[in-house]
Amino acid sequence: MRHFLALFFLISFNNGFAQKTDSVFIRQIYDEALLRGESYQNLEALCKGVGHRLTASPGADQAVIWGKELLESYNFDKVYLQKIMVPHWERGTQESAWFTDKDGERKKINVLALGGSVATDGTLKAEVIEVKTFDELKELGRAKVEGKIVFFNRAMDPKNVNTFRSYGGCYDQRGYGALEAAKLGAVGVLVRSLSLKIDYFPHTGSLRYEEGTDKIPAAAISTRDAYFLKTAINKGKVIVDMQLNCKIHPDKESYNVIAEMTGSSKKDEIILIGGHLDSWDVGEGAHDDGAGIAHSIEAFRILKQLNYKPKRTLRCVLYMNEENGNMGGKTYAEKAKTAKEVHHAALESDRGGFTPRGFSLDGTPKQVEKLQSFSELLKPYDLHIFEAGYGGVDIGPLKNGSTALIGFIPDSQRYFDHHHAQSDVFEMINQRELELGAAACASLLYLIDKHGIN
Amino acid sequence: MRHFLALFFLISFNNGFAQKTDSVFIRQIYDEALLRGESYQNLEALCKGVGHRLTASPGADQAVIWGKELLESYNFDKVYLQKIMVPHWERGTQESAWFTDKDGERKKINVLALGGSVATDGTLKAEVIEVKTFDELKELGRAKVEGKIVFFNRAMDPKNVNTFRSYGGCYDQRGYGALEAAKLGAVGVLVRSLSLKIDYFPHTGSLRYEEGTDKIPAAAISTRDAYFLKTAINKGKVIVDMQLNCKIHPDKESYNVIAEMTGSSKKDEIILIGGHLDSWDVGEGAHDDGAGIAHSIEAFRILKQLNYKPKRTLRCVLYMNEENGNMGGKTYAEKAKTAKEVHHAALESDRGGFTPRGFSLDGTPKQVEKLQSFSELLKPYDLHIFEAGYGGVDIGPLKNGSTALIGFIPDSQRYFDHHHAQSDVFEMINQRELELGAAACASLLYLIDKHGIN
Repeated sequence: MRHFLALFFLISFNNGFAQKTDSVFIRQIYDEALLRGESYQNLEALCKGVGHRLTASPGADQAVIWGKELLESYNFDKVYLQKIMVPHWERGTQESAWFTDKDGERKKINVLALGGSVATDGTLKAEVIEVKTFDELKELGRAKVEGKIVFFNRAMDPKNVNTFRSYGGCYDQRGYGALEAAKLGAVGVLVRSLSLKIDYFPHTGSLRYEEGTDKIPAAAISTRDAYFLKTAINKGKVIVDMQLNCKIHPDKESYNVIAEMTGSSKKDEIILIGGHLDSWDVGEGAHDDGAGIAHSIEAFRILKQLNYKPKRTLRCVLYMNEENGNMGGKTYAEKAKTAKEVHHAALESDRGGFTPRGFSLDGTPKQVEKLQSFSELLKPYDLHIFEAGYGGVDIGPLKNGSTALIGFIPDSQRYFDHHHAQSDVFEMINQRELELGAAACASLLYLIDKHGIN
Repeated sequence: MRHFLALFFLISFNNGFAQKTDSVFIRQIYDEALLRGESYQNLEALCKGVGHRLTASPGADQAVIWGKELLESYNFDKVYLQKIMVPHWERGTQESAWFTDKDGERKKINVLALGGSVATDGTLKAEVIEVKTFDELKELGRAKVEGKIVFFNRAMDPKNVNTFRSYGGCYDQRGYGALEAAKLGAVGVLVRSLSLKIDYFPHTGSLRYEEGTDKIPAAAISTRDAYFLKTAINKGKVIVDMQLNCKIHPDKESYNVIAEMTGSSKKDEIILIGGHLDSWDVGEGAHDDGAGIAHSIEAFRILKQLNYKPKRTLRCVLYMNEENGNMGGKTYAEKAKTAKEVHHAALESDRGGFTPRGFSLDGTPKQVEKLQSFSELLKPYDLHIFEAGYGGVDIGPLKNGSTALIGFIPDSQRYFDHHHAQSDVFEMINQRELELGAAACASLLYLIDKHGIN
């Protein structure tokens, strides 16, 4: 019994000691982020120095150089480029749309072609009809859809506290609206922007076509214009004329940018942190996903600055092409598989640079439990979400039943105000909110390395 | 045993049923706030229609009328004004400061007189010395302080996740700096703005004088100017010349604006919700405390809209004069005491219109426990802080050992960017964040009325 007790106290003491060490180190991480942080200035350089950086654009090429040079400047163990092939879609120089109401009054609509959209052949002019769901579209049938422009006008549901849920509930219109409308003979598509804010910014994003179905042009319109257009349609027949001269070029070479801190005792187990370097071609991709890039680099910088020697190999990946193809994520995962690399965990930041709330984990129940076991250490930093959930688009292809895929969760209220729109600029970033995100990610990286997630 | 089990299931069922009813009603509250909310448009009317509203100013008078008319428009059981006497300080038309460095170069400083400051007698010109603490000031002693302008330059600590803690750690400079400096013969005071952001906005706020000590003029300077001034002082002797022609007028009559929903079974127990109607005389008092006013009115509107019939009497109080005297809070509490009113609980929103985090309670441990018992119902709305803590300035004078004083806690990261500064305008408000705050307050009001807090 005495031995048992001694053992018990020893374990308790060790546990207490570990907790103490961890809490002290996490405090150091936060101090570094908040007192001597570089995430804000790095993000400013990306947003203002490089600007937007659509895959295969000159901005994307510059962003790769920017990322590589910045990572090199921090002297991590390795910095290298991973070659990938990416799609090359380019917005045209002509992008405009007007509607003419039943009384012949003509009104301009703010539009942005959806990423991947084909061009209109000169001016596309047709009657526009409004639908809110694919079911509604199918009910109308070919007779009422053929030759028309279909206007998808389902608004994001403001009732969800988590705005990503509302986004999920409307995404189909943008992603598959052109495909479904074309199946019934429509000639074009307008989609209400996926934003909870009523304003004049159209929000773009990718669409999908399928071989065997006509590819028809599609554009996002601002939520304010969606209201005007709907009001006009309610009064009678409305004609839209629109011009989009976007271009699809052959695939092009591009790169994921990767840095490593080599592990000691478990160097063959990789813990990845990443975000995506590409953005849409409006605004500056500040929250989407400049913030995730800044978080990932800063988490790495902080751990190195604090002289942390990881057990596992830490890898920071600045992915290319999340927005319109995910070739960065797919290629990375394929090459990792070919090389038989073991990814212990992957953490992605791609929900903006807002105040941290916590993490969601796509993995086994035991991994979720392990994540939750860190919650007491992170509670003093107002992190309170530790739950099963989505990881991220870039890290998604790593899913294999054993790698824990983890998504960083900041507050979601403002994210879709700026998502894929001209307003996603550096000025929308709050320095402290960004810094707290970097510290949260660095802390989790540290805890997973130290204690494992399995 | 069978009876016992039956009883057990009955209790469980009732508890479950109560929880179910509560969760359904709270969902209705949130739906009303997010789908048909009026908090955002009400706050816009206050910010843009009335504007800033320093106690005893024409803006404050207008705000009283605005508040009364708005509350009347909602047809609550009672709406009335409570007369109070308030101090009347007025910023002057002349407010400027310059420093001249050791090389004779002259540079303008952005200043705002602190609320309550006396004027300079024409131009005040003196050497400026920098200190960071009162201890440092005392160490310098009369010999080095007499005849000088003292520049208090202690920065808010960025390391605290809760920015209110950092504010608390610097408040003494603004509140008591002029008093402590005057004791050693200083002729004026400049105070580094209480903000974590480095920019050009000075942040004002009240100061305190004491009878028997010279009243010397004091002004806030922007954090950016604090840096320039400090840099100049490090290089050699710096002279400041400043002009402030603020005025102190005789006290004036003003009002708290009050609305009531009369209770049924416990109508003599009052549950109060409130914020403050007055603001500083720069910006629009959007976060401080237009948001609290909008929250309080909206919580009331929602409960009435949902046809909720309170057991206790609910009282919505738009307090006057929180910023420079708290005569609204003090007078309200005195009159309540005289009238032997029983306040079951008081909830204040005065930390801005940001995404809700939870509530802090100043009261008995049992009351804190009761607050925590509501946490499961509020967790789906991302509320996670339920702890012992501060209530609020306006409701503070109600403290009597039995009334639960509760502070609404939104995210604190951006609050001090705008606090008491020209940038505290409606454009800094996010609609959803504001609406979620109103819903959180309405939900707690409902739960306290239904289940009590004792």
